[in-house]
Amino acid sequence: MIEYEYDVVVIGAGHAGTEAAAAAARLGAKTALLTTNLDTVGQMSCNPAIGGVAKGQIVREVDALGGLMGRAIDATGIQFRLLNRRKGPAMHSPRAQADKKAYQQFIKHEIELQPDLDLRQETVEDLLTETTPDGEKLVGVQVRGDAVYRAPTVVLTTGTFLSAVMHTGDAKTAGGRAGEGTTTGISGALQRLGFAIDRFKTGTPARLNRRTIDYRSLEEQPGDDQPQPFSFLNDTIDIQQVPCHIAMTNPAVHDLIRANLHRAPMYSGQINSRGPRYCPSIEDKVVRFADKDSHQLFLEPEGHHTEEIYVNGISTSLPRDVQDAMFRQIEGLQNAQIMRYGYAVEYDYCPPTQLWPHLESKTVPGLFLAGQINGTTGYEEAAGQGLIAGLNAARIVAGKSTWVPTRDQAYIGVLVDDLVTSGTDEPYRMFTSRAEFRLLLRQDNADRRLTADADQLGLIEATRRDAFQQKLKDIAKAMELLSASKVSTAKGDVKGDVYLRRPEVDWEVMCSIVPELGAIGAQAAQQVVFDIKYEGYVSRQRDEVARQQRMLKKKIPQTFDYATITAMRGEAREKLSSIRPVTLDQAQRISGITPADIALLLAYLEAPSK
Amino acid sequence: MIEYEYDVVVIGAGHAGTEAAAAAARLGAKTALLTTNLDTVGQMSCNPAIGGVAKGQIVREVDALGGLMGRAIDATGIQFRLLNRRKGPAMHSPRAQADKKAYQQFIKHEIELQPDLDLRQETVEDLLTETTPDGEKLVGVQVRGDAVYRAPTVVLTTGTFLSAVMHTGDAKTAGGRAGEGTTTGISGALQRLGFAIDRFKTGTPARLNRRTIDYRSLEEQPGDDQPQPFSFLNDTIDIQQVPCHIAMTNPAVHDLIRANLHRAPMYSGQINSRGPRYCPSIEDKVVRFADKDSHQLFLEPEGHHTEEIYVNGISTSLPRDVQDAMFRQIEGLQNAQIMRYGYAVEYDYCPPTQLWPHLESKTVPGLFLAGQINGTTGYEEAAGQGLIAGLNAARIVAGKSTWVPTRDQAYIGVLVDDLVTSGTDEPYRMFTSRAEFRLLLRQDNADRRLTADADQLGLIEATRRDAFQQKLKDIAKAMELLSASKVSTAKGDVKGDVYLRRPEVDWEVMCSIVPELGAIGAQAAQQVVFDIKYEGYVSRQRDEVARQQRMLKKKIPQTFDYATITAMRGEAREKLSSIRPVTLDQAQRISGITPADIALLLAYLEAPSK
Repeated sequence: MIEYEYDVVVIGAGHAGTEAAAAAARLGAKTALLTTNLDTVGQMSCNPAIGGVAKGQIVREVDALGGLMGRAIDATGIQFRLLNRRKGPAMHSPRAQADKKAYQQFIKHEIELQPDLDLRQETVEDLLTETTPDGEKLVGVQVRGDAVYRAPTVVLTTGTFLSAVMHTGDAKTAGGRAGEGTTTGISGALQRLGFAIDRFKTGTPARLNRRTIDYRSLEEQPGDDQPQPFSFLNDTIDIQQVPCHIAMTNPAVHDLIRANLHRAPMYSGQINSRGPRYCPSIEDKVVRFADKDSHQLFLEPEGHHTEEIYVNGISTSLPRDVQDAMFRQIEGLQNAQIMRYGYAVEYDYCPPTQLWPHLESKTVPGLFLAGQINGTTGYEEAAGQGLIAGLNAARIVAGKSTWVPTRDQAYIGVLVDDLVTSGTDEPYRMFTSRAEFRLLLRQDNADRRLTADADQLGLIEATRRDAFQQKLKDIAKAMELLSASKVSTAKGDVKGDVYLRRPEVDWEVMCSIVPELGAIGAQAAQQVVFDIKYEGYVSRQRDEVARQQRMLKKKIPQTFDYATITAMRGEAREKLSSIRPVTLDQAQRISGITPADIALLLAYLEAPSK
Repeated sequence: MIEYEYDVVVIGAGHAGTEAAAAAARLGAKTALLTTNLDTVGQMSCNPAIGGVAKGQIVREVDALGGLMGRAIDATGIQFRLLNRRKGPAMHSPRAQADKKAYQQFIKHEIELQPDLDLRQETVEDLLTETTPDGEKLVGVQVRGDAVYRAPTVVLTTGTFLSAVMHTGDAKTAGGRAGEGTTTGISGALQRLGFAIDRFKTGTPARLNRRTIDYRSLEEQPGDDQPQPFSFLNDTIDIQQVPCHIAMTNPAVHDLIRANLHRAPMYSGQINSRGPRYCPSIEDKVVRFADKDSHQLFLEPEGHHTEEIYVNGISTSLPRDVQDAMFRQIEGLQNAQIMRYGYAVEYDYCPPTQLWPHLESKTVPGLFLAGQINGTTGYEEAAGQGLIAGLNAARIVAGKSTWVPTRDQAYIGVLVDDLVTSGTDEPYRMFTSRAEFRLLLRQDNADRRLTADADQLGLIEATRRDAFQQKLKDIAKAMELLSASKVSTAKGDVKGDVYLRRPEVDWEVMCSIVPELGAIGAQAAQQVVFDIKYEGYVSRQRDEVARQQRMLKKKIPQTFDYATITAMRGEAREKLSSIRPVTLDQAQRISGITPADIALLLAYLEAPSK
């Protein structure tokens, strides 16, 4: 038996695993990243896109923390769009189509180049623990071929591969991704260690051959004129963008689906586990939105060097003949050739309330879980968790305290807090509505929220630190210039920063008035504009954060009668009555108590009648 | 049960399968190419290189026949070398390092773009036949998910995936490539259909992380100054080439291997099947060449965008600890990090004497086998067979006669003739020595040997036809110019074509004498030079071909006593004595009778004493 010694071992090299391993190694932990097939490191298993509403913000945060995802999509994107551009900046969400293969190669190469990180093709068969007076403690993993990786911390990122089964109609195949196997040893190990395990499902649509699509009748969807980078390290994106196209389902397609619903594994009873509500299959959409007679389908190219087209919006596990027939009824796709059929995949996940906020197991110290194994869906949610798990694994090995961003600091903070506090009864996807402080958690200011902390943690390199410091200096300088300047208006002179608040005044206008502003970097300039224009909203939200933080210290009278909070969920009332927390802070840390419960409790504690 | 109708179904999308499918579709056959995972179409499972001695010639032939491999490597090569450049042109052999991922993507994209060809992700579970008065006849394949592809012809290209087992030390894993499964249903089908099945093994070395290699002590091996394309469609290669490097094993490494030989599956008895003699594992080399105390290892980058380094020359199935220890003893590799361990793989193949020369089964009409399933090794050998199988499947469906190049026409002709006539008792690799007419089968003239036939067959497009016609015109024009020109020498005037025969005279010299030659294309110019300089050798070999073709018609006296040919293999003497062929032509078609046997027989028949 061969033994290797590491500080951190990461199992699985998808979006969670690669960020986890890279973060741990950046912190100087001797890290191994193990995966069954090196050719699938960083693979985008489903849609060829990064970002989107709330997800794009997470990518910016991952980047602000020194992660991989932002730089990867900047380097390999083929179409960039800033979603919700017409709404306020808190809703601005970057999204980009990726060249799937190029993205995968970029991530793998970054991992290969990372010092202190060994990427190795290994199949993990078991988790190794030792019994201590306090219970089982993790000590390493067993891999195929009679070898052991010893490590005090292990990050488990199995994605959809844990005891996975794929479904297309009544055809079932064991495996987490077409043509690839499933991971059974780890499921067994988790059960043995007493983990609660449940099952979720997710799905993917068919891929079509572009050559067989008739684009003449389809609406074109181009990228932004000026693509905006995801990474704070990049100022511009200089590529030839490719367009997507929009096709539409129609009543005939919906009739076909309804007529075949009994053959859909989700409806035939073949699959019982829940799927992502906000990324539903086409059969779900037809059932749940029965009044709609058409749904949009986005035809997304999978890269520059392939004809494969991802059909966003028609994820399905209907049998292959129904999939064939659906496309034959859709304008532009009548002759489309299916290259891969859509399927659903069921897999094991561990309800994440079994974890501390830094994503370590509460019962098996040293074992971290990140990504889809925690019941989430989405590349970005996985990446954010991976980063948190990896950096904390490294910190624990180094004898340091854990670090997790707060809910008012990052979507990633909201994400891990939601997961470990409330769990999830369906695949968890991020939304802006999940963030009570979303005006603060903007995509544009992710670096100002996180990069100083990242620097303190040791997660970032000099280049990023210097660029960030320069940006802060630029912002300060611009603010100084603006407040020192005067603009003549019909109603007399006003200071530049006041003038900039006017809706019709933008940065270019200010530069023409205050030429020294021309020396300010574009990223800093944007921050200054947002800071000034949205100061009112933002400061109100900051006040709310401060108030909540004060309130969390608030004592709860031991005589407080939770039964009076009639608007509160019964489960929350019971838990609070039984535990009787001393402060709101303690109350909010009770498993199953949500921020909404705390808000209610606070309202009652503060109500004049009390 | 869903049924699809095709003319040709190709199973497996490696080097054989992609050429087979593309060739069939080019001939207008409605073709399906089925593979378990679309992400591995055209994947280079082992070394990141195309070509080499005799293999490079095959690539040129595949290209001359309109195949994919030449264009793919031209588009994705990262280092080009013409091997044996100092020897005569018959030995010139192009070889190039590939960007593995880019190569794979190029091939997949070509397949996606090919009209009449459907590339589909499917797992074939069974071969379907119908019973006819003459026996079983192939009618299609069954795929996972209750669907059937009906087709009168099926090309089976399973590579190393048929009932495959991978070995690293005593660790065994079912599968044909790391992380990928094995194909068992087809093995069963072949057995049921009465095919003889045997087992071969092959192996692959470890991959290292370039970042961990100390290159200072290693010899650099750059590419050619002027890289030469593989495809006749390309005149130049315009890329930034990367160097390879050479490391050396040493007595300490060899001692280590000897000390651990009992743990090598090939020596412990765990593997009994034979591997490729001319691509031996390092343990084989140490045993078979016990007097050598050092072997070269070529460190070959796997691409522009990866740090993975393929260690050519150290293929092994020794256990992982021995692999680790070997590298620690090799100068420059002491700290090298293994990303993937080497392994051996055992797999089923079908002794190819069960096939007709066009690679169709003799017993199950409609079933073609190509590539490693026929007991060969090498991407190029696979591609050549795939092309032959695919084009003949399409021709048979169209009711046309089969076409196979002859032994004096192409290495591919030698390849299929050797396989179906003699079979092979070890993985078959092409060598120049296998071709009795190797002076004719040069890499430079593959188009002149094959492209006219390819055009007749319908395998090539107008671009290639036009370029080829122009080249022939250029050659004729140049010959005309040369023979019409006069060069003054010390011994009087000589014609240009005579003058060019002189060793010190090259094309540039002739162009300065006959300026009109400047208008001749580079490819044509090279042909003219070779034609003139090597006329003597080539015409002698052509005479030999003609003589043999005459001789094949030669009658063998019924009283001929084969026992007198003492130099002949006993097996051949027995077969000939028992069958008593009437002509040499019949004699050579006897299974197990080799061209060498015929040459001997011919010598005896012609000997004056007879």
